[in-house]
Amino acid sequence: MKVLALDTSNRPLTVAILDDNQVLATESTTVHQKHAEYLLPIIDELFKKVDMKPSDLQRVVVANGPGSYTGIRIATATAKTLAYTLNIDLVGVSSLLTLALNVQEEGSLVMPIFDARNNNIFTGLYKIENGLPKSILEDQHTDFDKWLDLVGEVNSNVYVLGDFDNFNNKLSDQYNNRFKTLDGFSNLPQAAKLGIYGQKQSPVNNIHGFVPNYLRLTKAEADWKKNNPEASETSYVEKFD
Amino acid sequence: MKVLALDTSNRPLTVAILDDNQVLATESTTVHQKHAEYLLPIIDELFKKVDMKPSDLQRVVVANGPGSYTGIRIATATAKTLAYTLNIDLVGVSSLLTLALNVQEEGSLVMPIFDARNNNIFTGLYKIENGLPKSILEDQHTDFDKWLDLVGEVNSNVYVLGDFDNFNNKLSDQYNNRFKTLDGFSNLPQAAKLGIYGQKQSPVNNIHGFVPNYLRLTKAEADWKKNNPEASETSYVEKFD
Repeated sequence: MKVLALDTSNRPLTVAILDDNQVLATESTTVHQKHAEYLLPIIDELFKKVDMKPSDLQRVVVANGPGSYTGIRIATATAKTLAYTLNIDLVGVSSLLTLALNVQEEGSLVMPIFDARNNNIFTGLYKIENGLPKSILEDQHTDFDKWLDLVGEVNSNVYVLGDFDNFNNKLSDQYNNRFKTLDGFSNLPQAAKLGIYGQKQSPVNNIHGFVPNYLRLTKAEADWKKNNPEASETSYVEKFD
Repeated sequence: MKVLALDTSNRPLTVAILDDNQVLATESTTVHQKHAEYLLPIIDELFKKVDMKPSDLQRVVVANGPGSYTGIRIATATAKTLAYTLNIDLVGVSSLLTLALNVQEEGSLVMPIFDARNNNIFTGLYKIENGLPKSILEDQHTDFDKWLDLVGEVNSNVYVLGDFDNFNNKLSDQYNNRFKTLDGFSNLPQAAKLGIYGQKQSPVNNIHGFVPNYLRLTKAEADWKKNNPEASETSYVEKFD
């Protein structure tokens, strides 16, 4: 199966083209956040390098959040447009699970972290079973201290990946020598691993209905809710009908 | 430390630019073996993407074999020329160790394999200690069955990486459920990991004297030895003095 995989949910941009388990080409950068500007040219370059055209694809796999609003929208809009235009399968994978794919140790716990500022994080808890991350505590946007309370004591090694620099001390206090980290490369999502994983996942039924998992309100939604405390959950959207 | 890392010793081509532990950009392809044609343009593209020039570098790290003669020569010639021209440090790392960097499990054994045809392989045995591969049996060019005899029984998990498709059955027979493999991405060398590792290694003293580790004779050398069985070890080279 020929697959394009992409993740721009946070600062890293990563793209890969695969044929089943074989990675034909992959590129990752962490320097710019101009994902809208760089994503399509990088996809185009990679197709040229592997002598393929978009119409050779059978599937698009995209990391669909959480992360930066703009980053997630760029990746999911690109993936949806490709899948719709080419009439091929689209698979969405949690951006946190994508990062957790970097851990190998069977039975270990994985805590991928995206720093959402002011002591807030996007995170989830995964366990490596049969070589792949399985969700144990669902992806969420939460206060870091509340998160540590929720996870509590652990009996396995805990691999912490991503943007955890601001939480190093608290993690060491809580998990002592069970707290493990990997090298700088393993703290970045790999589209190549996302593409391998996504080949075994069910594609979405309705490409048009596919939406990112922001896991928090946009600022506009939050402001509107503040000003309309009595409104129902859906009325912000209804306003635009 | 700003570092360029590259490995073209086998079919995969992988290049990365790093700043200490941070991977700024990396690209890998496995489709062409036109490394001579693709390597410099890819390096040039990556420099542009990270807004750097070669003169910003402090170190070049290269996988210096074993592997394909041509592939090794392209990477080492490029790395030597850059290090010499820019007057910066050059570090050479075994191409087998480079692949072994993909394994994380502490205490496990790693057997990276490059298929050298006719039941011959390039391989070595590594053990993961403090997160990094340490050589246990030195890199060699050997018959696969002799290699399995040499390694013998093992008490730890053995991760086999690289081109081992032709040896899958023999490996399963020998190591049973201690024989572990990883996904297609982890069977490829990662210049990003090479670059992180190479920052902690001693640079070569004499850039001009830096030579690849082919670990076998070139065909020309082998033919000459066959026709000159009485000659000393060095006389093939002396002929060209």
